[in-house]
Amino acid sequence: MTREEAEALARADILAPLRAAFDLPAGVCYLDGNSLGAPPRAALARLRDLSEREWRVGLVRAWNDAGWIDLPMRAGARIARLIGAGPDEVVIADNVSANLFKLGGALLAAKPGRALAVAADEFPTDQYVLDGLAGISGARLVRLAPGEDPPAGAVFVKSLVHYRTAAVADMAAEERAAAQRGTDVIWDLSHATGVIVVDAAAAGARFAVGCGYKYLNGGPGAPAFIYVRGDEASALRQPLSGWMGSAAPFDFSSAYEPAPGVRRFASGTPPILSLAALDAALSLFEGVDLRATEAKARRLGDIFLAAGTAAGLSPILVEGRRGGHVAFRHPDGFAIVQALITRGVIGDFRAPDIMRFGFSPLYLSYTDVWSAGEVLRDVMTSAVWRDPKFAARGAVT
Amino acid sequence: MTREEAEALARADILAPLRAAFDLPAGVCYLDGNSLGAPPRAALARLRDLSEREWRVGLVRAWNDAGWIDLPMRAGARIARLIGAGPDEVVIADNVSANLFKLGGALLAAKPGRALAVAADEFPTDQYVLDGLAGISGARLVRLAPGEDPPAGAVFVKSLVHYRTAAVADMAAEERAAAQRGTDVIWDLSHATGVIVVDAAAAGARFAVGCGYKYLNGGPGAPAFIYVRGDEASALRQPLSGWMGSAAPFDFSSAYEPAPGVRRFASGTPPILSLAALDAALSLFEGVDLRATEAKARRLGDIFLAAGTAAGLSPILVEGRRGGHVAFRHPDGFAIVQALITRGVIGDFRAPDIMRFGFSPLYLSYTDVWSAGEVLRDVMTSAVWRDPKFAARGAVT
Repeated sequence: MTREEAEALARADILAPLRAAFDLPAGVCYLDGNSLGAPPRAALARLRDLSEREWRVGLVRAWNDAGWIDLPMRAGARIARLIGAGPDEVVIADNVSANLFKLGGALLAAKPGRALAVAADEFPTDQYVLDGLAGISGARLVRLAPGEDPPAGAVFVKSLVHYRTAAVADMAAEERAAAQRGTDVIWDLSHATGVIVVDAAAAGARFAVGCGYKYLNGGPGAPAFIYVRGDEASALRQPLSGWMGSAAPFDFSSAYEPAPGVRRFASGTPPILSLAALDAALSLFEGVDLRATEAKARRLGDIFLAAGTAAGLSPILVEGRRGGHVAFRHPDGFAIVQALITRGVIGDFRAPDIMRFGFSPLYLSYTDVWSAGEVLRDVMTSAVWRDPKFAARGAVT
Repeated sequence: MTREEAEALARADILAPLRAAFDLPAGVCYLDGNSLGAPPRAALARLRDLSEREWRVGLVRAWNDAGWIDLPMRAGARIARLIGAGPDEVVIADNVSANLFKLGGALLAAKPGRALAVAADEFPTDQYVLDGLAGISGARLVRLAPGEDPPAGAVFVKSLVHYRTAAVADMAAEERAAAQRGTDVIWDLSHATGVIVVDAAAAGARFAVGCGYKYLNGGPGAPAFIYVRGDEASALRQPLSGWMGSAAPFDFSSAYEPAPGVRRFASGTPPILSLAALDAALSLFEGVDLRATEAKARRLGDIFLAAGTAAGLSPILVEGRRGGHVAFRHPDGFAIVQALITRGVIGDFRAPDIMRFGFSPLYLSYTDVWSAGEVLRDVMTSAVWRDPKFAARGAVT
């Protein structure tokens, strides 16, 4: 692709106006929105207002007067639209790990004796959480080899978009298979929400968790969400039973009575500052068609894949749909990512040898990514990354 | 007490200079810092800097460059000093409910077959959490009648400061009794930390959780803390095993290996915006002697108790040490609290009939509280609270 072709795509980009909703730093091409999204101006403004007016002036009254108490369901409704759920089927709470634990624990309790299942190459944290859940509940944890099916009746945790390859699973096909096996699938939508089309209702998906700080741009450590289909929620009891998930949080009765619906998956007091930033960030998605974000992310990724391949890198290619990031393998991937960062192109490295680059379609332009591809080619052909200063570990990116 | 006497106390108050660290709204006497602390200017400034510089400009790099990755232990060390713990014995994570679940679950796993125990009048959320923990682990939950001892070998959850009465338990005596019974005490320090002297090491306390948004002024829903004594931490496995509690979060190995020490009680990604506000709020406690805060809170509470008693209210009195709040019982307590709020005196109501007033010693003066006592007397003698508009429920305060 030439610069002129990229510029033509940029002119035709219906998502281009959204870039003005972000205040990106100069000299940076940010290809790590799949790890931590850039801040929307609306989120920064909301944080100022929340901290300097609602908290400072409203004090404890703001729980009612500013509606903090309803934020978990209100922001949840905004996410619901992005995943094909009903507005009262999603609640924001805790982080992905805790939500996975709660949902998995609730499903184990509903049918005693069932196993937990997860692919052996699934996102490591999800595996860690299932390990802990297996330990406390006594359930068996089955790690699946590639292509292996979960055992009948199991609670099966699966990412919709794989964290390394960005391959998109076929949600509807998985749900059909699950119905046959009597398994329940908990979808991890962390790398999917806000970038690709997700239609839980159409696919028959009943349970999901997901992250607020990647393509949703909710801020570092933004709280996570839980989706439970309406017909399932009120039959489930989750183990992390805190006051925010109780039917009447201000009754101060000793016996826990879960709230109706998905709100019972809330637990303790949510981090309001982080939650409000997420809520404001979600406002950017109003009116956004996720078919457009998915198509743009795909095209941006293709441009960068082509540049890297031309520079001699080995891309990880996927068949069918792809999420918002692409990846290359290289034994010196860490050093290459560091060298790119010094040139203003921010991606990330995932041990042992994966370089990932994410294409957040709300704030990246076709020309940004075309230019980043040129930087990648230059870094690879000049071999600047062989400078020993780039090999020092300890960085998080 | 006369106004002149209150003014004399205010002049002699060694904590008075700390008031300038807060930017309290005009016309308000805030007696609900035991529910949600007022914002320190340092916390508001830190939020601006974190959101508008670290997040906006640093983007994902800020995890390392701005030290976000170390915040849970760094802020934990600040809390450690306030509870008599070592700097590496406290980590910030999640909320009190989740932390209680994790610590309780770890102690159950360490000695299978033991029961959970809690007083039947303990803080309701703590009871809810133990209910859920009992359900998933199969442990028996024993609710104790007044004066009843926990069963031998149990995991016993107890607030150091009772949420209604503010009575302070004798930590050292409880720990001696626990040693005899073979029980482990998990202390809930939520209503104690930052206002009264807590010396976990001297008392022999080994396990505790606590809240960041009350007397620590960390902001609405600020994350909570876990204390585990150094000699105990590395022998425990907690059930909510997420990547932030793993030994090497960026190795991306499939097997969970817990971090050494208390950091293994971290779970998923922490809410950095909320965590940073808490960290900044904690900076106010540097150099503060908690004997001074405890004595001042006691004296402030005594002034308000005297005013309420003179106005005909029934105080809940405690023998021995008292935490930072006082309480009255009144069948129309809800309406009285609402009437006080319209007069600028903010307290809270706890069902069914408790009015609570907290005395945060960092930002309240003796003259503030003396004046609030006058307002209380006026509200009670004028019976303004009988206006039906004050009886409408639904408010949170």
